[in-house]
Amino acid sequence: MITVADNLHILNSAFAQAVENLDAGPVRELVQYCEQAGARAIDINPGPLPREPQKRFTFLVETVRAATKLPLLLDTGNAKALEAGLAACGGKAVINGFSLEPAKLEQILPLAQRYDADIIGYLLYPDSQVPIEAADMMAVAVELFQAYTERGLAAERLIIDPVITPLSWHNGLHHNQAVLEVLGNLDDLLGVRLRTMAGLSNLASGPAAEHRKVALEMAYLPMLAAAGLDLVLLDMRHTLTVRMAQVCDALLGDKIFTWAQLDGIMDPGT
Amino acid sequence: MITVADNLHILNSAFAQAVENLDAGPVRELVQYCEQAGARAIDINPGPLPREPQKRFTFLVETVRAATKLPLLLDTGNAKALEAGLAACGGKAVINGFSLEPAKLEQILPLAQRYDADIIGYLLYPDSQVPIEAADMMAVAVELFQAYTERGLAAERLIIDPVITPLSWHNGLHHNQAVLEVLGNLDDLLGVRLRTMAGLSNLASGPAAEHRKVALEMAYLPMLAAAGLDLVLLDMRHTLTVRMAQVCDALLGDKIFTWAQLDGIMDPGT
Repeated sequence: MITVADNLHILNSAFAQAVENLDAGPVRELVQYCEQAGARAIDINPGPLPREPQKRFTFLVETVRAATKLPLLLDTGNAKALEAGLAACGGKAVINGFSLEPAKLEQILPLAQRYDADIIGYLLYPDSQVPIEAADMMAVAVELFQAYTERGLAAERLIIDPVITPLSWHNGLHHNQAVLEVLGNLDDLLGVRLRTMAGLSNLASGPAAEHRKVALEMAYLPMLAAAGLDLVLLDMRHTLTVRMAQVCDALLGDKIFTWAQLDGIMDPGT
Repeated sequence: MITVADNLHILNSAFAQAVENLDAGPVRELVQYCEQAGARAIDINPGPLPREPQKRFTFLVETVRAATKLPLLLDTGNAKALEAGLAACGGKAVINGFSLEPAKLEQILPLAQRYDADIIGYLLYPDSQVPIEAADMMAVAVELFQAYTERGLAAERLIIDPVITPLSWHNGLHHNQAVLEVLGNLDDLLGVRLRTMAGLSNLASGPAAEHRKVALEMAYLPMLAAAGLDLVLLDMRHTLTVRMAQVCDALLGDKIFTWAQLDGIMDPGT
Protein backbone atom coordinates (compact mmCIF):
# COMPACT_ATOMS: atom_id res chain seq x y z
CA MET A 1 0.00 0.00 0.00
CA ILE A 2 1.38 3.37 -1.02
CA THR A 3 1.19 5.91 1.78
CA VAL A 4 0.37 9.37 0.40
CA ALA A 5 0.88 12.33 2.74
CA ASP A 6 -2.15 14.62 3.06
CA ASN A 7 -0.26 17.13 5.19
CA LEU A 8 0.23 19.74 2.45
CA HIS A 9 -3.37 20.82 2.92
CA ILE A 10 -4.94 24.25 3.00
CA LEU A 11 -6.44 23.49 6.42
CA ASN A 12 -2.89 23.17 7.77
CA SER A 13 -2.30 26.81 8.72
CA ALA A 14 1.49 26.72 8.29
CA PHE A 15 1.03 25.41 4.76
CA ALA A 16 -1.76 27.93 3.99
CA GLN A 17 0.48 30.75 5.17
CA ALA A 18 3.35 29.53 2.99
CA VAL A 19 1.05 29.35 -0.05
CA GLU A 20 -0.16 32.87 0.71
CA ASN A 21 3.38 34.23 0.99
CA LEU A 22 4.98 32.01 -1.69
CA ASP A 23 7.38 31.01 1.05
CA ALA A 24 9.32 27.87 0.04
CA GLY A 25 10.94 27.12 3.42
CA PRO A 26 7.92 25.79 5.34
CA VAL A 27 6.76 23.78 2.31
CA ARG A 28 10.17 22.15 1.99
CA GLU A 29 10.26 21.32 5.69
CA LEU A 30 6.80 19.79 5.53
CA VAL A 31 7.75 17.63 2.56
CA GLN A 32 10.92 16.45 4.28
CA TYR A 33 8.96 15.65 7.43
CA CYS A 34 6.47 13.58 5.41
CA GLU A 35 9.20 11.72 3.55
CA GLN A 36 11.05 10.88 6.74
CA ALA A 37 7.79 9.74 8.32
CA GLY A 38 7.33 7.16 5.56
CA ALA A 39 5.34 8.92 2.83
CA ARG A 40 5.75 7.34 -0.60
CA ALA A 41 3.90 10.14 -2.41
CA ILE A 42 2.88 13.72 -1.62
CA ASP A 43 -0.57 15.22 -2.18
CA ILE A 44 -0.56 18.99 -2.76
CA ASN A 45 -3.90 20.51 -1.76
CA PRO A 46 -3.85 24.31 -1.70
CA GLY A 47 -7.65 24.65 -1.85
CA PRO A 48 -9.52 26.57 -4.55
CA LEU A 49 -6.79 29.22 -5.08
CA PRO A 50 -9.02 32.20 -5.87
CA ARG A 51 -6.06 34.55 -6.51
CA GLU A 52 -3.22 33.88 -8.96
CA PRO A 53 -3.93 30.15 -9.20
CA GLN A 54 -1.29 29.38 -11.84
CA LYS A 55 1.47 31.25 -10.07
CA ARG A 56 0.74 29.67 -6.68
CA PHE A 57 0.38 26.12 -7.92
CA THR A 58 3.50 26.39 -10.08
CA PHE A 59 5.39 27.66 -7.02
CA LEU A 60 4.11 24.70 -5.01
CA VAL A 61 4.95 22.05 -7.58
CA GLU A 62 8.42 23.47 -8.15
CA THR A 63 9.11 23.78 -4.43
CA VAL A 64 7.94 20.24 -3.66
CA ARG A 65 9.85 18.77 -6.61
CA ALA A 66 13.02 20.49 -5.46
CA ALA A 67 12.56 18.95 -2.01
CA THR A 68 11.77 15.34 -2.95
CA LYS A 69 11.81 12.71 -5.68
CA LEU A 70 8.53 11.25 -4.44
CA PRO A 71 5.56 11.16 -6.85
CA LEU A 72 3.12 14.05 -6.55
CA LEU A 73 -0.67 14.24 -6.50
CA LEU A 74 -2.01 17.59 -7.67
CA ASP A 75 -5.12 18.12 -5.59
CA THR A 76 -7.20 21.12 -6.63
CA GLY A 77 -10.51 21.64 -8.38
CA ASN A 78 -9.09 24.77 -10.02
CA ALA A 79 -8.40 23.66 -13.60
CA LYS A 80 -6.13 26.60 -14.36
CA ALA A 81 -3.98 25.91 -11.32
CA LEU A 82 -3.94 22.21 -12.15
CA GLU A 83 -2.81 22.76 -15.71
CA ALA A 84 -0.03 25.10 -14.58
CA GLY A 85 1.05 22.47 -12.04
CA LEU A 86 1.07 19.72 -14.65
CA ALA A 87 3.09 21.91 -16.99
CA ALA A 88 5.57 22.66 -14.19
CA CYS A 89 6.35 18.97 -13.76
CA GLY A 90 6.02 17.87 -17.37
CA GLY A 91 2.86 15.92 -16.57
CA LYS A 92 4.72 13.69 -14.10
CA ALA A 93 2.01 13.78 -11.46
CA VAL A 94 -1.31 12.20 -10.53
CA ILE A 95 -4.34 14.45 -11.03
CA ASN A 96 -6.51 14.45 -7.90
CA GLY A 97 -9.14 14.32 -9.26
CA PHE A 98 -12.40 14.20 -11.14
CA SER A 99 -15.94 12.94 -10.59
CA LEU A 100 -19.25 12.98 -12.45
CA GLU A 101 -19.58 16.69 -11.62
CA PRO A 102 -19.95 18.32 -15.06
CA ALA A 103 -17.24 20.97 -14.44
CA LYS A 104 -14.80 18.19 -13.51
CA LEU A 105 -15.64 16.11 -16.56
CA GLU A 106 -15.27 19.13 -18.84
CA GLN A 107 -12.24 20.85 -17.35
CA ILE A 108 -10.24 18.34 -15.31
CA LEU A 109 -10.59 15.06 -17.17
CA PRO A 110 -9.21 16.45 -20.47
CA LEU A 111 -6.00 17.36 -18.60
CA ALA A 112 -5.40 13.67 -17.91
CA GLN A 113 -5.50 13.09 -21.64
CA ARG A 114 -3.40 16.11 -22.55
CA TYR A 115 -0.66 15.28 -20.03
CA ASP A 116 -1.00 11.49 -20.22
CA ALA A 117 -1.31 11.49 -16.44
CA ASP A 118 -2.82 9.13 -13.86
CA ILE A 119 -6.04 10.51 -12.42
CA ILE A 120 -8.16 9.85 -9.33
CA GLY A 121 -11.87 9.31 -9.98
CA TYR A 122 -14.21 9.92 -7.04
CA LEU A 123 -17.38 7.90 -6.52
CA LEU A 124 -19.65 10.94 -6.14
CA TYR A 125 -22.92 11.95 -7.75
CA PRO A 126 -22.82 14.75 -10.36
CA ASP A 127 -23.85 17.21 -7.60
CA SER A 128 -20.88 15.98 -5.49
CA GLN A 129 -23.11 14.25 -2.95
CA VAL A 130 -21.86 10.93 -1.60
CA PRO A 131 -23.76 7.77 -2.59
CA ILE A 132 -24.32 5.98 0.71
CA GLU A 133 -25.25 2.42 -0.24
CA ALA A 134 -22.79 0.01 -1.89
CA ALA A 135 -25.20 -0.56 -4.79
CA ASP A 136 -25.39 3.19 -5.47
CA MET A 137 -21.60 3.51 -5.27
CA MET A 138 -21.30 0.67 -7.76
CA ALA A 139 -23.71 2.39 -10.14
CA VAL A 140 -21.66 5.59 -9.89
CA ALA A 141 -18.46 3.58 -10.50
CA VAL A 142 -19.91 2.14 -13.70
CA GLU A 143 -20.97 5.59 -14.90
CA LEU A 144 -17.64 7.15 -13.97
CA PHE A 145 -15.67 4.39 -15.68
CA GLN A 146 -17.78 4.81 -18.80
CA ALA A 147 -17.33 8.60 -18.83
CA TYR A 148 -13.59 8.01 -18.46
CA THR A 149 -13.11 5.31 -21.09
CA GLU A 150 -15.41 6.83 -23.70
CA ARG A 151 -12.91 9.69 -23.91
CA GLY A 152 -10.31 7.16 -25.00
CA LEU A 153 -8.39 7.16 -21.73
CA ALA A 154 -6.57 4.02 -20.57
CA ALA A 155 -8.07 2.05 -17.66
CA GLU A 156 -4.63 1.53 -16.11
CA ARG A 157 -4.34 5.30 -15.63
CA LEU A 158 -7.51 5.52 -13.54
CA ILE A 159 -7.45 5.27 -9.75
CA ILE A 160 -10.86 4.97 -8.05
CA ASP A 161 -11.52 6.69 -4.71
CA PRO A 162 -14.69 5.38 -3.01
CA VAL A 163 -14.78 8.41 -0.64
CA ILE A 164 -14.49 7.64 3.06
CA THR A 165 -16.84 9.92 5.03
CA PRO A 166 -16.65 11.10 8.63
CA LEU A 167 -18.02 8.55 11.10
CA SER A 168 -19.78 11.47 12.76
CA TRP A 169 -22.08 11.87 9.73
CA HIS A 170 -25.42 10.26 10.50
CA ASN A 171 -24.82 7.53 7.93
CA GLY A 172 -21.02 7.61 8.07
CA LEU A 173 -20.65 4.21 9.70
CA HIS A 174 -22.94 2.54 7.20
CA HIS A 175 -21.26 4.22 4.25
CA ASN A 176 -17.76 3.31 5.36
CA GLN A 177 -18.83 -0.32 5.65
CA ALA A 178 -20.10 -0.02 2.07
CA VAL A 179 -16.69 1.39 1.06
CA LEU A 180 -15.13 -1.95 2.08
CA GLU A 181 -17.72 -3.88 0.09
CA VAL A 182 -17.19 -1.73 -3.00
CA LEU A 183 -13.39 -2.01 -2.82
CA GLY A 184 -13.70 -5.77 -2.63
CA ASN A 185 -16.02 -5.99 -5.65
CA LEU A 186 -14.90 -3.22 -7.99
CA ASP A 187 -12.73 -5.40 -10.23
CA ASP A 188 -15.51 -7.93 -10.68
CA LEU A 189 -18.00 -5.17 -11.40
CA LEU A 190 -15.92 -3.37 -14.01
CA GLY A 191 -14.20 -6.43 -15.43
CA VAL A 192 -10.80 -4.82 -15.11
CA ARG A 193 -8.25 -4.39 -12.31
CA LEU A 194 -8.26 -0.71 -11.34
CA ARG A 195 -6.11 0.84 -8.66
CA THR A 196 -7.88 2.38 -5.69
CA MET A 197 -7.16 5.16 -3.22
CA ALA A 198 -8.90 6.37 -0.08
CA GLY A 199 -8.53 9.41 2.16
CA LEU A 200 -8.21 7.92 5.65
CA SER A 201 -8.17 11.23 7.53
CA ASN A 202 -11.83 11.76 6.64
CA LEU A 203 -12.83 8.84 8.86
CA ALA A 204 -12.27 10.60 12.16
CA SER A 205 -12.30 14.22 11.06
CA GLY A 206 -13.54 16.68 13.66
CA PRO A 207 -12.50 17.81 17.10
CA ALA A 208 -11.99 14.40 18.76
CA ALA A 209 -8.83 13.51 20.68
CA GLU A 210 -5.92 12.51 18.48
CA HIS A 211 -5.43 9.07 20.07
CA ARG A 212 -9.05 8.19 19.32
CA LYS A 213 -8.66 9.22 15.71
CA VAL A 214 -5.54 7.10 15.44
CA ALA A 215 -7.26 4.09 17.00
CA LEU A 216 -10.09 4.31 14.47
CA GLU A 217 -7.63 4.69 11.61
CA MET A 218 -5.59 1.73 12.87
CA ALA A 219 -8.70 -0.46 12.91
CA TYR A 220 -10.12 0.66 9.56
CA LEU A 221 -6.87 0.69 7.57
CA PRO A 222 -6.29 -3.11 7.69
CA MET A 223 -9.89 -3.60 6.55
CA LEU A 224 -9.21 -1.34 3.57
CA ALA A 225 -5.92 -3.09 2.91
CA ALA A 226 -7.50 -6.54 2.94
CA ALA A 227 -10.18 -5.26 0.54
CA GLY A 228 -7.37 -4.43 -1.88
CA LEU A 229 -6.70 -0.70 -1.38
CA ASP A 230 -3.60 0.43 -3.32
CA LEU A 231 -3.00 3.99 -2.09
CA VAL A 232 -3.92 5.55 1.22
CA LEU A 233 -3.95 9.30 1.76
CA LEU A 234 -3.16 9.94 5.41
CA ASP A 235 -1.75 12.26 8.04
CA MET A 236 1.93 11.40 8.38
CA ARG A 237 1.95 12.73 11.95
CA HIS A 238 -0.13 9.67 12.88
CA THR A 239 2.92 7.47 13.38
CA LEU A 240 0.99 4.41 14.51
CA THR A 241 -1.34 4.56 11.51
CA VAL A 242 1.67 4.74 9.19
CA ARG A 243 3.24 1.75 10.92
CA MET A 244 -0.02 -0.11 10.61
CA ALA A 245 0.09 0.43 6.83
CA GLN A 246 3.53 -1.17 6.79
CA VAL A 247 2.46 -4.14 8.93
CA CYS A 248 -0.51 -4.63 6.57
CA ASP A 249 1.93 -4.77 3.67
CA ALA A 250 3.90 -7.47 5.47
CA LEU A 251 0.71 -9.48 6.15
CA LEU A 252 -0.79 -9.13 2.69
CA GLY A 253 2.37 -9.22 0.62
CA ASP A 254 4.03 -12.17 -1.06
CA LYS A 255 7.44 -12.08 0.60
CA ILE A 256 8.24 -14.94 2.94
CA PHE A 257 7.48 -13.55 6.38
CA THR A 258 10.46 -12.78 8.56
CA TRP A 259 10.51 -10.82 11.78
CA ALA A 260 13.25 -8.68 10.22
CA GLN A 261 10.61 -7.27 7.85
CA LEU A 262 9.23 -5.49 10.87
CA ASP A 263 12.55 -3.85 11.75
CA GLY A 264 12.14 -0.11 11.85
CA ILE A 265 8.37 -0.39 11.71
CA MET A 266 7.66 -1.11 15.34
CA ASP A 267 9.28 0.29 18.44
CA PRO A 268 8.69 -1.04 21.92
CA GLY A 269 5.48 0.38 23.27
CA THR A 270 3.31 -0.31 20.26
CA MET B 1 -16.87 -10.00 17.83
CA ILE B 2 -16.79 -12.16 20.93
CA THR B 3 -13.40 -12.13 22.60
CA VAL B 4 -12.56 -15.57 24.02
CA ALA B 5 -9.64 -15.77 26.45
CA ASP B 6 -7.04 -18.39 25.55
CA ASN B 7 -5.08 -17.82 28.76
CA LEU B 8 -6.27 -20.98 30.54
CA HIS B 9 -3.83 -23.00 28.46
CA ILE B 10 -1.54 -25.87 29.41
CA LEU B 11 1.46 -23.90 28.05
CA ASN B 12 0.79 -21.26 30.73
CA SER B 13 2.88 -22.73 33.53
CA ALA B 14 0.83 -21.23 36.38
CA PHE B 15 -2.29 -22.83 34.90
CA ALA B 16 -0.52 -26.15 34.23
CA GLN B 17 0.65 -26.23 37.83
CA ALA B 18 -2.85 -25.52 39.12
CA VAL B 19 -4.27 -28.35 36.99
CA GLU B 20 -1.57 -30.67 38.30
CA ASN B 21 -2.33 -29.78 41.93
CA LEU B 22 -6.09 -29.34 41.55
CA ASP B 23 -5.50 -25.89 43.03
CA ALA B 24 -8.53 -23.64 42.47
CA GLY B 25 -6.97 -20.32 43.54
CA PRO B 26 -4.74 -19.62 40.53
CA VAL B 27 -7.48 -20.76 38.12
CA ARG B 28 -9.97 -18.40 39.73
CA GLU B 29 -7.50 -15.50 39.58
CA LEU B 30 -6.77 -16.15 35.94
CA VAL B 31 -10.47 -16.21 35.08
CA GLN B 32 -11.06 -12.97 36.95
CA TYR B 33 -8.11 -11.36 35.19
CA CYS B 34 -9.49 -12.38 31.79
CA GLU B 35 -12.98 -11.16 32.59
CA GLN B 36 -11.70 -7.79 33.78
CA ALA B 37 -9.54 -7.52 30.66
CA GLY B 38 -12.64 -7.81 28.46
CA ALA B 39 -13.08 -11.53 27.78
CA ARG B 40 -16.63 -12.48 26.84
CA ALA B 41 -15.96 -16.23 26.98
CA ILE B 42 -13.30 -18.50 28.50
CA ASP B 43 -11.53 -21.35 26.71
CA ILE B 44 -10.32 -24.12 29.02
CA ASN B 45 -7.37 -25.97 27.47
CA PRO B 46 -5.64 -28.34 29.87
CA GLY B 47 -3.92 -30.35 27.11
CA PRO B 48 -4.33 -34.10 26.66
CA LEU B 49 -4.76 -34.91 30.40
CA PRO B 50 -3.07 -38.31 30.48
CA ARG B 51 -3.82 -38.87 34.18
CA GLU B 52 -7.28 -38.71 35.74
CA PRO B 53 -8.81 -36.80 32.85
CA GLN B 54 -12.38 -36.78 34.18
CA LYS B 55 -11.41 -35.65 37.63
CA ARG B 56 -9.16 -32.84 36.37
CA PHE B 57 -11.54 -31.49 33.78
CA THR B 58 -14.47 -31.62 36.19
CA PHE B 59 -12.37 -29.69 38.71
CA LEU B 60 -11.56 -27.08 36.03
CA VAL B 61 -15.13 -26.64 34.82
CA GLU B 62 -16.47 -26.35 38.35
CA THR B 63 -13.76 -23.91 39.38
CA VAL B 64 -14.23 -21.67 36.33
CA ARG B 65 -18.02 -21.73 36.64
CA ALA B 66 -17.75 -20.70 40.28
CA ALA B 67 -15.56 -17.76 39.25
CA THR B 68 -17.54 -16.37 36.30
CA LYS B 69 -20.86 -16.38 34.49
CA LEU B 70 -19.08 -16.14 31.10
CA PRO B 71 -19.68 -18.93 28.56
CA LEU B 72 -17.07 -21.69 28.50
CA LEU B 73 -15.28 -23.46 25.66
CA LEU B 74 -14.10 -26.94 26.61
CA ASP B 75 -10.87 -27.39 24.71
CA THR B 76 -9.43 -30.88 24.88
CA GLY B 77 -9.09 -33.77 22.50
CA ASN B 78 -9.58 -36.18 25.41
CA ALA B 79 -13.16 -37.38 24.96
CA LYS B 80 -13.43 -38.73 28.48
CA ALA B 81 -12.34 -35.42 29.96
CA LEU B 82 -14.66 -33.56 27.64
CA GLU B 83 -17.67 -35.64 28.56
CA ALA B 84 -16.97 -35.17 32.27
CA GLY B 85 -16.67 -31.41 31.68
CA LEU B 86 -19.94 -31.29 29.77
CA ALA B 87 -21.66 -33.25 32.51
CA ALA B 88 -20.24 -30.87 35.13
CA CYS B 89 -21.93 -27.88 33.46
CA GLY B 90 -25.08 -29.59 32.23
CA GLY B 91 -23.92 -29.25 28.62
CA LYS B 92 -23.81 -25.44 28.88
CA ALA B 93 -20.52 -25.09 27.05
CA VAL B 94 -19.03 -24.98 23.57
CA ILE B 95 -17.08 -28.08 22.58
CA ASN B 96 -13.68 -27.10 21.15
CA GLY B 97 -13.65 -29.00 18.92
CA PHE B 98 -13.70 -31.58 16.17
CA SER B 99 -12.25 -32.02 12.67
CA LEU B 100 -12.22 -34.70 9.96
CA GLU B 101 -9.77 -36.69 12.10
CA PRO B 102 -11.55 -40.06 12.54
CA ALA B 103 -11.10 -40.15 16.33
CA LYS B 104 -12.69 -36.70 16.60
CA LEU B 105 -15.62 -37.65 14.38
CA GLU B 106 -16.20 -40.83 16.36
CA GLN B 107 -15.61 -39.67 19.92
CA ILE B 108 -16.03 -35.87 20.07
CA LEU B 109 -18.81 -35.09 17.61
CA PRO B 110 -21.35 -37.43 19.26
CA LEU B 111 -20.92 -35.42 22.47
CA ALA B 112 -22.29 -32.33 20.70
CA GLN B 113 -25.41 -34.34 19.95
CA ARG B 114 -25.69 -35.93 23.37
CA TYR B 115 -25.31 -32.59 25.21
CA ASP B 116 -27.02 -30.40 22.55
CA ALA B 117 -23.93 -28.19 22.62
CA ASP B 118 -22.31 -25.75 20.19
CA ILE B 119 -19.14 -27.19 18.68
CA ILE B 120 -16.11 -25.77 16.89
CA GLY B 121 -15.21 -27.50 13.60
CA TYR B 122 -11.60 -27.10 12.43
CA LEU B 123 -10.70 -26.90 8.75
CA LEU B 124 -8.04 -29.62 8.92
CA TYR B 125 -7.40 -32.75 6.88
CA PRO B 126 -8.22 -36.12 8.48
CA ASP B 127 -4.50 -36.44 9.44
CA SER B 128 -4.74 -33.00 11.15
CA GLN B 129 -2.54 -31.29 8.55
CA VAL B 130 -3.54 -27.76 7.57
CA PRO B 131 -4.87 -27.21 4.04
CA ILE B 132 -2.86 -24.25 2.76
CA GLU B 133 -4.80 -22.98 -0.25
CA ALA B 134 -8.24 -21.37 -0.01
CA ALA B 135 -9.69 -23.90 -2.46
CA ASP B 136 -8.44 -26.80 -0.33
CA MET B 137 -9.82 -25.19 2.82
CA MET B 138 -13.17 -24.79 1.08
CA ALA B 139 -13.17 -28.46 0.08
CA VAL B 140 -12.46 -29.43 3.70
CA ALA B 141 -15.25 -27.10 4.86
CA VAL B 142 -17.75 -28.83 2.58
CA GLU B 143 -16.66 -32.26 3.81
CA LEU B 144 -16.72 -31.17 7.46
CA PHE B 145 -20.15 -29.60 7.12
CA GLN B 146 -21.45 -32.75 5.48
CA ALA B 147 -19.98 -35.00 8.19
CA TYR B 148 -21.62 -32.73 10.75
CA THR B 149 -25.08 -32.42 9.22
CA GLU B 150 -25.43 -36.07 8.17
CA ARG B 151 -25.40 -36.91 11.88
CA GLY B 152 -28.55 -34.80 12.23
CA LEU B 153 -26.83 -31.89 13.99
CA ALA B 154 -28.14 -28.34 13.53
CA ALA B 155 -26.10 -25.92 11.39
CA GLU B 156 -26.65 -23.08 13.87
CA ARG B 157 -24.74 -25.08 16.48
CA LEU B 158 -21.60 -25.34 14.33
CA ILE B 159 -18.78 -22.78 14.54
CA ILE B 160 -16.09 -23.06 11.85
CA ASP B 161 -12.44 -22.37 12.69
CA PRO B 162 -10.29 -21.91 9.55
CA VAL B 163 -7.06 -22.39 11.58
CA ILE B 164 -4.66 -19.45 11.63
CA THR B 165 -1.07 -20.74 11.38
CA PRO B 166 2.18 -19.16 12.59
CA LEU B 167 3.56 -16.60 10.13
CA SER B 168 6.94 -18.21 10.74
CA TRP B 169 5.78 -21.39 8.98
CA HIS B 170 7.13 -21.40 5.45
CA ASN B 171 3.67 -20.98 3.95
CA GLY B 172 2.12 -19.22 6.97
CA LEU B 173 1.70 -15.86 5.26
CA HIS B 174 0.03 -17.38 2.23
CA HIS B 175 -2.27 -19.55 4.33
CA ASN B 176 -3.36 -16.70 6.57
CA GLN B 177 -4.30 -14.67 3.49
CA ALA B 178 -6.37 -17.67 2.39
CA VAL B 179 -8.03 -17.68 5.83
CA LEU B 180 -9.43 -14.21 5.05
CA GLU B 181 -10.69 -15.38 1.68
CA VAL B 182 -12.35 -18.45 3.17
CA LEU B 183 -14.03 -16.46 5.96
CA GLY B 184 -15.44 -14.07 3.38
CA ASN B 185 -16.84 -16.85 1.19
CA LEU B 186 -17.91 -19.58 3.60
CA ASP B 187 -21.60 -18.62 3.74
CA ASP B 188 -21.86 -18.52 -0.03
CA LEU B 189 -20.08 -21.85 -0.31
CA LEU B 190 -22.21 -23.72 2.21
CA GLY B 191 -25.45 -21.87 1.53
CA VAL B 192 -25.97 -21.16 5.20
CA ARG B 193 -24.76 -18.57 7.68
CA LEU B 194 -22.35 -20.31 10.04
CA ARG B 195 -20.53 -18.66 12.90
CA THR B 196 -16.74 -18.59 12.73
CA MET B 197 -13.91 -18.51 15.23
CA ALA B 198 -10.14 -18.09 14.90
CA GLY B 199 -7.21 -18.49 17.27
CA LEU B 200 -5.32 -15.21 16.88
CA SER B 201 -2.40 -16.13 19.14
CA ASN B 202 -1.24 -18.67 16.56
CA LEU B 203 -0.37 -15.86 14.15
CA ALA B 204 2.73 -14.68 15.95
CA SER B 205 3.52 -17.70 18.10
CA GLY B 206 7.18 -18.21 18.89
CA PRO B 207 9.90 -16.33 20.69
CA ALA B 208 9.44 -12.85 19.12
CA ALA B 209 9.13 -9.68 21.19
CA GLU B 210 5.67 -9.12 22.61
CA HIS B 211 5.17 -5.69 20.98
CA ARG B 212 5.80 -7.22 17.56
CA LYS B 213 3.27 -9.97 18.20
CA VAL B 214 0.74 -7.38 19.29
CA ALA B 215 1.36 -5.24 16.20
CA LEU B 216 0.75 -8.23 13.92
CA GLU B 217 -2.39 -9.17 15.84
CA MET B 218 -3.64 -5.57 15.67
CA ALA B 219 -3.20 -5.52 11.89
CA TYR B 220 -4.67 -8.98 11.22
CA LEU B 221 -7.65 -8.78 13.58
CA PRO B 222 -9.50 -6.00 11.67
CA MET B 223 -9.02 -8.01 8.47
CA LEU B 224 -10.62 -11.03 10.16
CA ALA B 225 -13.39 -8.83 11.58
CA ALA B 226 -14.19 -7.31 8.18
CA ALA B 227 -14.28 -10.83 6.70
CA GLY B 228 -17.05 -11.61 9.20
CA LEU B 229 -15.31 -13.39 12.09
CA ASP B 230 -17.68 -13.94 15.04
CA LEU B 231 -15.40 -15.19 17.82
CA VAL B 232 -11.73 -14.54 18.36
CA LEU B 233 -9.61 -16.62 20.72
CA LEU B 234 -6.84 -14.40 22.05
CA ASP B 235 -4.38 -13.61 24.82
CA MET B 236 -6.15 -11.19 27.15
CA ARG B 237 -2.79 -9.81 28.31
CA HIS B 238 -2.50 -8.19 24.85
CA THR B 239 -4.46 -5.11 25.89
CA LEU B 240 -4.09 -3.30 22.57
CA THR B 241 -5.31 -6.32 20.62
CA VAL B 242 -8.37 -6.55 22.87
CA ARG B 243 -9.08 -2.84 22.37
CA MET B 244 -8.70 -3.30 18.64
CA ALA B 245 -11.44 -5.96 18.75
CA GLN B 246 -13.71 -3.43 20.43
CA VAL B 247 -12.90 -0.66 17.93
CA CYS B 248 -13.63 -3.15 15.11
CA ASP B 249 -17.03 -3.78 16.68
CA ALA B 250 -17.71 -0.04 16.67
CA LEU B 251 -16.67 0.24 13.00
CA LEU B 252 -18.53 -2.83 11.77
CA GLY B 253 -21.59 -2.64 14.00
CA ASP B 254 -24.95 -1.06 13.30
CA LYS B 255 -25.13 1.44 16.13
CA ILE B 256 -24.96 5.10 15.17
CA PHE B 257 -21.31 6.01 15.73
CA THR B 258 -20.61 8.20 18.74
CA TRP B 259 -17.25 8.97 20.26
CA ALA B 260 -18.73 7.88 23.59
CA GLN B 261 -18.77 4.33 22.22
CA LEU B 262 -15.00 4.44 22.53
CA ASP B 263 -15.07 5.43 26.21
CA GLY B 264 -13.16 2.90 28.23
CA ILE B 265 -11.68 1.31 25.11
CA MET B 266 -8.86 3.73 24.41
CA ASP B 267 -6.55 5.46 26.82
CA PRO B 268 -4.17 8.25 25.83
CA GLY B 269 -1.08 6.77 24.31
CA THR B 270 -2.73 4.32 21.96
